[in-house]
Amino acid sequence: MLTVKTSSEAEKIIFDTFGKSIAPTESVSLLDSVGRVLSEDIISKENVPDFNRSTVDGFAVKATDTFGCSDSIPAILNYKGEVLMGESPKFSIEKDQCAYVPTGGELPDGADAMVMIEFAEDYGDGTRAMLKPSAPGQHVTFKGDDVKVGQTVLKSGTRLSARHIAALASLGISKVSVYKKLKVAVISTGDELIDVTETPSGAEVRDINSYEICAALDELGCETLRVGIVKDDLSLLEKTIKGVIDGTYDSSFGPCDMLIVSGGSSVGVKDATFKVYDNLGEVLFHGIAIKPGKPTILANINSKPCFGLPGHPLAAYYVFNLFVKPLVLSMSGDTSKSKTVKKVLPVSLSIPSNHGREECIGVKFIEKDSKEMVEPVYAKSGLVSNLSKIDGFIRIGRDCEGISQGDEVEVELF
Amino acid sequence: MLTVKTSSEAEKIIFDTFGKSIAPTESVSLLDSVGRVLSEDIISKENVPDFNRSTVDGFAVKATDTFGCSDSIPAILNYKGEVLMGESPKFSIEKDQCAYVPTGGELPDGADAMVMIEFAEDYGDGTRAMLKPSAPGQHVTFKGDDVKVGQTVLKSGTRLSARHIAALASLGISKVSVYKKLKVAVISTGDELIDVTETPSGAEVRDINSYEICAALDELGCETLRVGIVKDDLSLLEKTIKGVIDGTYDSSFGPCDMLIVSGGSSVGVKDATFKVYDNLGEVLFHGIAIKPGKPTILANINSKPCFGLPGHPLAAYYVFNLFVKPLVLSMSGDTSKSKTVKKVLPVSLSIPSNHGREECIGVKFIEKDSKEMVEPVYAKSGLVSNLSKIDGFIRIGRDCEGISQGDEVEVELF
Repeated sequence: MLTVKTSSEAEKIIFDTFGKSIAPTESVSLLDSVGRVLSEDIISKENVPDFNRSTVDGFAVKATDTFGCSDSIPAILNYKGEVLMGESPKFSIEKDQCAYVPTGGELPDGADAMVMIEFAEDYGDGTRAMLKPSAPGQHVTFKGDDVKVGQTVLKSGTRLSARHIAALASLGISKVSVYKKLKVAVISTGDELIDVTETPSGAEVRDINSYEICAALDELGCETLRVGIVKDDLSLLEKTIKGVIDGTYDSSFGPCDMLIVSGGSSVGVKDATFKVYDNLGEVLFHGIAIKPGKPTILANINSKPCFGLPGHPLAAYYVFNLFVKPLVLSMSGDTSKSKTVKKVLPVSLSIPSNHGREECIGVKFIEKDSKEMVEPVYAKSGLVSNLSKIDGFIRIGRDCEGISQGDEVEVELF
Repeated sequence: MLTVKTSSEAEKIIFDTFGKSIAPTESVSLLDSVGRVLSEDIISKENVPDFNRSTVDGFAVKATDTFGCSDSIPAILNYKGEVLMGESPKFSIEKDQCAYVPTGGELPDGADAMVMIEFAEDYGDGTRAMLKPSAPGQHVTFKGDDVKVGQTVLKSGTRLSARHIAALASLGISKVSVYKKLKVAVISTGDELIDVTETPSGAEVRDINSYEICAALDELGCETLRVGIVKDDLSLLEKTIKGVIDGTYDSSFGPCDMLIVSGGSSVGVKDATFKVYDNLGEVLFHGIAIKPGKPTILANINSKPCFGLPGHPLAAYYVFNLFVKPLVLSMSGDTSKSKTVKKVLPVSLSIPSNHGREECIGVKFIEKDSKEMVEPVYAKSGLVSNLSKIDGFIRIGRDCEGISQGDEVEVELF
């Protein structure tokens, strides 16, 4: 029998069933890899830098030769020659010797420090006087200081940002192996639904969810197929769902990796999604004890996760963020969790107990007494405009007896 | 004479000169608008909902008729009929009358509350007994409760996320007016630079910056033209810069809105960018008193901002985030500042004074004593791999005398 699950039971079922499903990989050019998820560890084949490099214009020395020197007691070193930019030195440095090296140039073997040119004098007799001591390693980036051969620079599962792309470029990686974008199909069901381009009459309402969910998936780097509205008709819904799963519905999109159906509020719609899922595969749960979002469904059809979300756009959005998004990220190979930013701040108002049921409450950030705080935004059922005002949400556990003004809460940012 | 500017002077020059330059607008479909910047206020032409809507299955009543009723003393009301889903009621409710309305259905005129069907009984004589009082507005979403005609729902300058797209869909907006993507050309200069596909010999280094900066611009929603490497040759650099500014360099990309040149470290390169900028337009500043990033240049060529960034990828990235990104967002019309997330957390280590010069220090988030803290990541000059480890950076003002362990700092997240 399918009973209502707690949110942690639901999460466990989701990941026990689909946690190992990960998108296949493909190779993309470095410039196209921003926002994509790396599908292999990046292990350096090179030392970076590849030689001991000076970070100043000056003299390469053995540091010990300069210890204790000063303006009044300079260290007199034999001048061995100049290292040219972009060339490897053809000599080495022995005790009491030095060589000129420009910024970015290579230190000769034997040298372990640089003295800046400002602190050296040319005595005109083949020697140079060092007026300031240098510690070993001073003004030098040693071979492999940045990255050593064999070092793991980036882990598989990293969502690539500009900083990672800089690291890849420095290693000479122009093609990057990434996970393919997850393909997700999105359907809205309900006889009362009309497209966004139409004007409602009577109790008709516009289909908000298919746009909202596609946009949310887009933000997570998915490829989406917005099927749009399917009327509350079992055989039509079943045919459509079969088609998006086997790829015949839209052959250019192909078979989806995940399906999200959100139900309208008309009587029987939730049943329709359940019945079709039950016909075509196995329903894993039907109902999560969380407010909002109780009528959430998960089914396994051809090893693909198929969600049924509540019809209300606000409820659908919470359920998407709580239960769908973590699986989307996991199936996209993303292990960096970089997409969920959390902020811990005090609440500006007390929040009463929710009487034994886990609850999500939308919040916005406000400034109060010149301190950043979190304010709950209570929305009457149906208030879409609120969705555009809130910055994130807090979760109040089923056992929580309410939150007092000034208590710190963890906000999950949208 | 061009003197080195403080960072706030530099910011003022940037915004005084280019703060009013904003990209032109275009119309895109709702599904394509995610991540784009709204270029007009969205003012509702409709009430949402468009009628007084029941949120339960039950009886529409005048709330006053139910006051004081209970199981033992029910309020007996004359049954006026049923409102069908999707239809407007053809009757109104007077004193001591009620009508059945389903969830989502429209309340008849005169009714101001709903009594849930669980708390009503059919006496079989044309009356219904209400067993529980309802307050005015209970279980009802009134016309315009969500959005009223003439109400501003979204402000111009909002970067559209899934939540905003839900609000637009609810208002029936299928085409959205947004700012065009900012077109930015990116050049790396320096004789020592080789492309990422090549293997360095001698002191050659791979061009990291053009990839890094293009990726960072991509993250901000820009269209980029990666010109790549231009050798350190005044006339070639001038010809290239002219071409990207007037659009002849790449006619499919057209004239850029902004140019970013980053200089290599070879001698004379910074001068080359400066000289070309000076020849073609007006150099507004040359040098910012900040570490890293001192050699930063800003010029105005044909009313377009042209930056010169340091050659070092880490320094270029800081300067990009501090000075270029705010202008990119402003020119993209983005007033929501949503792209800079800040976190305030204590530091895990003391950070010494920086001796009178403003400084950016890369940091990562760590857990210490089961508390989230910020740890500075000190990078020797040239350490690219660090860029992929840090989560953001802190700015230490020129007048700051150091930060003590446990002090709270504001981290700007990358």
